[in-house]
Amino acid sequence: MIDRTDPAGAIAAAAADCSNWGRWGADDVLGTLNFLDAAKRREGAALVRRGASFSLAQRFDADGPQRGWRRRTNPVHTMLDTGTDAVFGDQGFPHGIGGADDVIAMPLQCSTQWDGLGHIFDRGKAWNGRPAERVVTAAGDQVTGIEHCAPHVAGRAVLLDVGRVVGGGELPDGFAITEQHLAETAEAHGVAVGRGDIVLVRTGQLARVRRDGWGEYAGGPAPGLSFTTARWLHRTEIAAIATDTWGFEVRPNEFDEAFQPLHQIAIPNIGLLLGEMWDFEELAADCAADGRHDCWLTAAPLPITGAVGSPVNPVAVK
Amino acid sequence: MIDRTDPAGAIAAAAADCSNWGRWGADDVLGTLNFLDAAKRREGAALVRRGASFSLAQRFDADGPQRGWRRRTNPVHTMLDTGTDAVFGDQGFPHGIGGADDVIAMPLQCSTQWDGLGHIFDRGKAWNGRPAERVVTAAGDQVTGIEHCAPHVAGRAVLLDVGRVVGGGELPDGFAITEQHLAETAEAHGVAVGRGDIVLVRTGQLARVRRDGWGEYAGGPAPGLSFTTARWLHRTEIAAIATDTWGFEVRPNEFDEAFQPLHQIAIPNIGLLLGEMWDFEELAADCAADGRHDCWLTAAPLPITGAVGSPVNPVAVK
Amino acid sequence: MIDRTDPAGAIAAAAADCSNWGRWGADDVLGTLNFLDAAKRREGAALVRRGASFSLAQRFDADGPQRGWRRRTNPVHTMLDTGTDAVFGDQGFPHGIGGADDVIAMPLQCSTQWDGLGHIFDRGKAWNGRPAERVVTAAGDQVTGIEHCAPHVAGRAVLLDVGRVVGGGELPDGFAITEQHLAETAEAHGVAVGRGDIVLVRTGQLARVRRDGWGEYAGGPAPGLSFTTARWLHRTEIAAIATDTWGFEVRPNEFDEAFQPLHQIAIPNIGLLLGEMWDFEELAADCAADGRHDCWLTAAPLPITGAVGSPVNPVAVK
Amino acid sequence: MIDRTDPAGAIAAAAADCSNWGRWGADDVLGTLNFLDAAKRREGAALVRRGASFSLAQRFDADGPQRGWRRRTNPVHTMLDTGTDAVFGDQGFPHGIGGADDVIAMPLQCSTQWDGLGHIFDRGKAWNGRPAERVVTAAGDQVTGIEHCAPHVAGRAVLLDVGRVVGGGELPDGFAITEQHLAETAEAHGVAVGRGDIVLVRTGQLARVRRDGWGEYAGGPAPGLSFTTARWLHRTEIAAIATDTWGFEVRPNEFDEAFQPLHQIAIPNIGLLLGEMWDFEELAADCAADGRHDCWLTAAPLPITGAVGSPVNPVAVK
Repeated sequence: MIDRTDPAGAIAAAAADCSNWGRWGADDVLGTLNFLDAAKRREGAALVRRGASFSLAQRFDADGPQRGWRRRTNPVHTMLDTGTDAVFGDQGFPHGIGGADDVIAMPLQCSTQWDGLGHIFDRGKAWNGRPAERVVTAAGDQVTGIEHCAPHVAGRAVLLDVGRVVGGGELPDGFAITEQHLAETAEAHGVAVGRGDIVLVRTGQLARVRRDGWGEYAGGPAPGLSFTTARWLHRTEIAAIATDTWGFEVRPNEFDEAFQPLHQIAIPNIGLLLGEMWDFEELAADCAADGRHDCWLTAAPLPITGAVGSPVNPVAVK
Repeated sequence: MIDRTDPAGAIAAAAADCSNWGRWGADDVLGTLNFLDAAKRREGAALVRRGASFSLAQRFDADGPQRGWRRRTNPVHTMLDTGTDAVFGDQGFPHGIGGADDVIAMPLQCSTQWDGLGHIFDRGKAWNGRPAERVVTAAGDQVTGIEHCAPHVAGRAVLLDVGRVVGGGELPDGFAITEQHLAETAEAHGVAVGRGDIVLVRTGQLARVRRDGWGEYAGGPAPGLSFTTARWLHRTEIAAIATDTWGFEVRPNEFDEAFQPLHQIAIPNIGLLLGEMWDFEELAADCAADGRHDCWLTAAPLPITGAVGSPVNPVAVK
Repeated sequence: MIDRTDPAGAIAAAAADCSNWGRWGADDVLGTLNFLDAAKRREGAALVRRGASFSLAQRFDADGPQRGWRRRTNPVHTMLDTGTDAVFGDQGFPHGIGGADDVIAMPLQCSTQWDGLGHIFDRGKAWNGRPAERVVTAAGDQVTGIEHCAPHVAGRAVLLDVGRVVGGGELPDGFAITEQHLAETAEAHGVAVGRGDIVLVRTGQLARVRRDGWGEYAGGPAPGLSFTTARWLHRTEIAAIATDTWGFEVRPNEFDEAFQPLHQIAIPNIGLLLGEMWDFEELAADCAADGRHDCWLTAAPLPITGAVGSPVNPVAVK
Repeated sequence: MIDRTDPAGAIAAAAADCSNWGRWGADDVLGTLNFLDAAKRREGAALVRRGASFSLAQRFDADGPQRGWRRRTNPVHTMLDTGTDAVFGDQGFPHGIGGADDVIAMPLQCSTQWDGLGHIFDRGKAWNGRPAERVVTAAGDQVTGIEHCAPHVAGRAVLLDVGRVVGGGELPDGFAITEQHLAETAEAHGVAVGRGDIVLVRTGQLARVRRDGWGEYAGGPAPGLSFTTARWLHRTEIAAIATDTWGFEVRPNEFDEAFQPLHQIAIPNIGLLLGEMWDFEELAADCAADGRHDCWLTAAPLPITGAVGSPVNPVAVK
């Protein structure tokens, strides 16, 4: 199906087929979040039946997946004040109050995250066809910074537990998830995916790396979406999609020489919000138990002005 | 009412009256978030009527409120890759893909945030009566780190727009909000505050600092909760409370020599999650327009292991 | 002398007169540090007569000159481990050893520093005529990173205490130091400036900001070198030059609309290493006392790969 | 010689034998740097014969030795402005000036460094017998911060190339360098070590890790000083000592359960400045070639207020 020797051709064709450029006007900064409307939020909120809530974030700490590649470290969290200081009375405060403060330094892509619309370019063009050099400078994303998404990412989510349905728990590394696998999973769950949904694709790899470690490079072999799902991502008019892997798409990628070709379609051409390194383990177990694979989800990026991504603590409620 | 010369006595008395130590067992790490249960989440979700969503976060950038006090800076956001680089082909990627990544360094208390349970101590004791030195070391909060809150902060929120009701828009700096003001505001709104609610107290100061700037020190004079509200915070069994000011409580504080005495009751003794520097402007305008002052709220802290606070993008949905 | 309305013309003329492009070959990465040779080091070392040493660095801490302009903060220094933790035995080490570690986050231009050759461009060209976009990307300076200077900045330094000689102690803000002032000062000191020297120009402003504070913006009005000294900087074949001010050249600049025009000549065209925010107070007092204004100086930048500047602790020995 | 089962006993004995507490008064903040006096500087400066200079620093970048242990990462260096931006005219400056700025976040112990006097404690005591909790809080070293060393670390250095003399180039990992090895090396070099000298001990391990990589943990097996050299470090009255390894002393340490026991003597008891991860390769080759193993050295820590260590670019001149 895929000509492994021609990534450029495949990308050009998929970009042409899947482009949403201009769909929401020349000034658009939201991409497919435009599909996530008030009606969809009402539909999502109606899914809160039990009131059970789930965090879909990994913990942010020194045990995370990063090993320094491309200057991506794990978060470095340090204290400005501590309880040990407080009991020694070193803090200079009156009437017995003591305090602790803290600081963090981290790549915005270090763990559970959203990729913003400025994160990936296709042949020099950012989302909506804008010249990349006019969008992301050293001062950050001047146009489509993640802050624009701040109020929007709350709606109906659908969990597609491909790991369980197709893989019997976990998909092996290098497994390319196709439209067929997605359809088969949705059918097994008895759930439909449509316009404005936030799709959560569980591969099960996170359970594996928790057992075995991330290894030298979190971007190594992993299950993930096949490049061939580009048209499904476009056609379904979903608002956003996230996986439990480092890089969303299958690794190694499906061309002989390639780096994340599906990103090149999904972000700058479709305008799709991509989530990576989410943790679906607890939610997926709950869904398997009660048979309901849709829920209310809020996954609000920090409105860091000009950021091309954001750490996030997505909270699902059923 | 308040003996301005005796903060220590007032604090000791309020701590004795308001303590929740042991209420949820010796191992508790959640404090008043225990009040926010599944039933409350169902009640909150039922408030999603129109599907309108609001971000209650300020933007995280160099224009924020911090000026360096206690090493608190505004966020420093830098790019690891840019669009300008991408168009020059400097990035070394194949098939026309380009990318931008970014990094942030910031105090966790720099802007819209939650104070975690390890943020404040009362005479050497942290939440639940634990010795402060056993809770927060230079390695972070070993017991009550903000990561424990990750799935919990989603439920019913009540906006008390004291600025509008009492102040005709904005409360002046130094204005101490009392129980009476809170009750008067709730009555004017036709809304009740009860167990498990997340209370949002709008003073209107944020509108003012947007016009006039934060000045030299964001912790300077501001409206905020009176120390006398401690028993109300305890008695109402609310799950969390947030204001639109730097420091939640009135500044200057109500004792001659004091530093944030209400924090000293609220966090270590009541176990209450406090939010600061939230932005209620858009939500409050909407509530004033439609007359409904309660809503669904998700305000999920980043699960930074051992953190005593977290930046947050709270999203309200009505 | 200066046509205040024509910075572009003045810059073009000075660049043409002062260019060292190609002087040390097409691959040069050192600029005027090429003048600082072994003979000059021998000459400098011979100036160590008493063995007295002086640090010419300001302290790096939260009380520094930065207020956030262009994301330049003061250093944020935090501890990974502390003595308070150690005495509580929280560190997990055997046999009574305890430790403290620390972390820093800082702009490389936040305090006493060297500007590297990649710091400034003239009409799109970096040092030696290279296209700026081929030199400094988001990955840093790919050609002339400060690491190349690592072994070189040790030699003879000459202090020109213009503040004392011309200003009677301190020059007023906005005072433009001309060739005439430099010559007059050298003559008063009985010292000569020549090829390979590191020139230290004391304005005395640092003494003033220590009394009065840096104010809102360290780049505000200050004494400094006149744009007209460009040809002197070139002709004298000095290796490097530093001042005790934020910006080396006089502020406000001498054109109606301008931003650091002398930098635009000195760095990309002359290839000159510029130092800023150095502290000459103690050294200058010593020189005034003993009448000797030259000394041995080591001012070794940290070899941060690809950096366009570096914090530095220059040490003078007399 | 060493009872591997009794580190505590050996440490107590060595601490008693080697203590310099009170030697320079109760207020001392310099330790053995007191030995480095003006006479020693004159002696050192006289060693500048050829004027050849050498940087003894590794490069500070993402390829450094750190892998995240104890939150120690390699430096993260990012750009605030770039040349690619400049040529696009994105920077907003007049008359064709463009600029690049940068930022760094790094542990102060990440690469070539000095350990300050507050870095290590012995049974709750810091240098000069001070209680550790009174010296290093979360606000940094309140007494012996590295800033106090700022003008002092310039003097005579002696290279002891134990790797060449004893190891034929490189010492194997786990090799414990004894007094005998140090004496043998000095004799082979024809050089004497005495009061106020800065001693540079080359093991050759850096050459090896450059070939083979640092591996998972830079603190793994390495050659280094034997615990038994404690009395030599004290008796010789050297001012400072540095090695080309992660941890100065032999790894694994020479007790069954131990962590850096020689540090526990050297820093808090002797008051000795320790250097780690220095790069002696070029200097050592030069010394081997010309037979002179002493030189002038300036190794000036950044005066980061309250720091317990500092990155450094030591510059040797012969």
